[in-house]
Amino acid sequence: MSDEKIFMDHVSTTPCDPRVVEAMRPYFSERYGNPSSQIHEQGVLASKAIDQAREQVAGLVNAAPKGVVFTSGATEANNLAMFGLAGIRGKEYRRILISEVEHYSIYYTMEPLRAHGYEVETVPVDKTGLVRPEALAKKLRPDTALVSIQHANGEIGAVQPLAELAALAHAQGALFHSDAAVSAGLVPLDMKAFGIDALTLSAHNFYGPKGVGALVLADGLRPRPRAYGGWQEGGLRSGTENVPGIVGMGMAAQIAKAELADTASRLETLARRLRDGIASRIRFVHFTGDRERRLPGHVSFWVEHVEGESLILFLNARGIMAASGSACSSNLKAHDEEELVASHVLAAVGVPTDICAGSVCLSLGKQNTEEDVERLLGELPATVDRLLMMSPSYADYLKQQKHR
Amino acid sequence: MSDEKIFMDHVSTTPCDPRVVEAMRPYFSERYGNPSSQIHEQGVLASKAIDQAREQVAGLVNAAPKGVVFTSGATEANNLAMFGLAGIRGKEYRRILISEVEHYSIYYTMEPLRAHGYEVETVPVDKTGLVRPEALAKKLRPDTALVSIQHANGEIGAVQPLAELAALAHAQGALFHSDAAVSAGLVPLDMKAFGIDALTLSAHNFYGPKGVGALVLADGLRPRPRAYGGWQEGGLRSGTENVPGIVGMGMAAQIAKAELADTASRLETLARRLRDGIASRIRFVHFTGDRERRLPGHVSFWVEHVEGESLILFLNARGIMAASGSACSSNLKAHDEEELVASHVLAAVGVPTDICAGSVCLSLGKQNTEEDVERLLGELPATVDRLLMMSPSYADYLKQQKHR
Repeated sequence: MSDEKIFMDHVSTTPCDPRVVEAMRPYFSERYGNPSSQIHEQGVLASKAIDQAREQVAGLVNAAPKGVVFTSGATEANNLAMFGLAGIRGKEYRRILISEVEHYSIYYTMEPLRAHGYEVETVPVDKTGLVRPEALAKKLRPDTALVSIQHANGEIGAVQPLAELAALAHAQGALFHSDAAVSAGLVPLDMKAFGIDALTLSAHNFYGPKGVGALVLADGLRPRPRAYGGWQEGGLRSGTENVPGIVGMGMAAQIAKAELADTASRLETLARRLRDGIASRIRFVHFTGDRERRLPGHVSFWVEHVEGESLILFLNARGIMAASGSACSSNLKAHDEEELVASHVLAAVGVPTDICAGSVCLSLGKQNTEEDVERLLGELPATVDRLLMMSPSYADYLKQQKHR
Repeated sequence: MSDEKIFMDHVSTTPCDPRVVEAMRPYFSERYGNPSSQIHEQGVLASKAIDQAREQVAGLVNAAPKGVVFTSGATEANNLAMFGLAGIRGKEYRRILISEVEHYSIYYTMEPLRAHGYEVETVPVDKTGLVRPEALAKKLRPDTALVSIQHANGEIGAVQPLAELAALAHAQGALFHSDAAVSAGLVPLDMKAFGIDALTLSAHNFYGPKGVGALVLADGLRPRPRAYGGWQEGGLRSGTENVPGIVGMGMAAQIAKAELADTASRLETLARRLRDGIASRIRFVHFTGDRERRLPGHVSFWVEHVEGESLILFLNARGIMAASGSACSSNLKAHDEEELVASHVLAAVGVPTDICAGSVCLSLGKQNTEEDVERLLGELPATVDRLLMMSPSYADYLKQQKHR
């Protein structure tokens, strides 16, 4: 068996594509100008590099380049969308809707938005993690300012029917934002065809660098800025631009667009093999998220009586890296163990908290191979058995079985 | 004469030190984990890398590592300081003071802070750009929540007496923040000795990468966060960390600390030569900022009858890159030409707007040599003469002289 480490946590982050690093390289020490210094050559070079990246990023999601606002990442983009777009329709639009399975950078804007006088409600998802159009329709009202529904969920892999949902929001006069942090570059996105007004992107989720993302805006839409100080990004995002990061994001977007279909099809094949292997080898397994509408390469499940987090720790000890819930959710648990044992996503899809002790999320990436999948499938049964033997809830179950 | 380009705009940005790029390199495609994914090896490696950078950055300014909050740059850090610290002393502290020569990312928080009910006033500077302690004392009141005075000014080079100013603020119970974006790594900074509660740093100003900065906090000080979504940076700054950028900032801080004295002394020698050369060769020249208390390598001036921006454009055509005012100020002018021809900094130091048409800011860096200085001194007189010949105000002046 190989000693190579296997990374199957691509929803948390991805390695930079070597072509991305190569594109960034000159912008550290050679073309190092500040794009605001357009009075000299170095500044002009930096500014042109950003313009090119803007076109590349716009190309990935079929948007106008001038709609691309570069940020420090998806969290900043999501915050800019929520706080910046909430108020622009005017005072009579006080209602905001988000799905129940949003990332924390959307989910946790609810409380401050309510403090600002907005009425924020969540739209439920079905058992497979999808927002049904009728569920959104039920919550929409003419005073709805903004609807924010993610493209794909990192924890359960479900991919939302954005075009239908956006059309419903627009029919009621609401703006439609989507957090595509974990899907962009893997699932086709067409802002114009889908009718999306604002889209959040995260470079490090599609083989670009960390520290850069974007909020992509439909023509003419201008959120209220969240930062004060400069005139960068059309006044929407102050601060000296992360030029190498932006160049890297541009290259990552260009590569993702060119290779999306091939990558997705390869990852889907691998994931099918992974899922089928797990289904046939592991008892008490429950897969989460929609089976068809899901992120390519994403397999998520929980096992009755088995702690998801312990399973991940055991796998890590065997050289296989995966996640329990979302990266952020793992992090959260460390800080607030008592209050939030199950993630809000698992709760939203109705996973029973009494017999589910955390989920497992395997997200494959471009570097994963069939051998990686086989190795995981080889390790998993023994690891699960070991955890079952340690599980008090499994012991209770066995006792009950015996007494039947 | 050499065809090499000469960069003398180091207050706008600096090239990454090759050692910084080398330190960052593995964190793009090899150690690419998300620091929140501490459940597996890749996440742990990323998290440890950030811890190390935190120590390196803290070391540069004599702070505790746990006080370092990494941000996407100085603008975000300044915004976090102003909005995040304004309210933490309680409702009875409603007064905020900033100097008249702050960067726009402090200056332009005044309006939104006023909208939140704060009384924000500016403290004047003297003709050399320094905040005199008595000027601050005059504005301080017992209800002052926060005083924010920059360490050094990028446009006129003046370095403020932070220890004295911080002591005055503390005597009135106010917190003291300083924007050290253009000075850190060039001028010694000791948060504990100076009594600074919060300090803004910008990596790309001390040969680190763009897209990363920090707000460094004194023990136990916790600003209100500006972003929602994750638990990164102790909950003070949500969003997946820019790991390579943070690693680069750490290495840049370590190098800056080790080489600060040598670098500063070399730059001071070069700047003296540059200043003396300009003083002896250019008529009608006025230097700005304090002569002694200034950024090493920084020479700023304006020439009667000569447009600063035109001078910079001519120099750029001859291969020498410099700035007219701050980079942001140049950028601003492009957007709002009518309203803001002179920068607020030049106005604050009493530069007469009728005979000053913009300043020139030469900021030397580690790569500049004596030859660079000589080349500039060789180009400058002819360029100034050419602009004088084109200047209507100089024509008027000559006419007046003739008629005397």
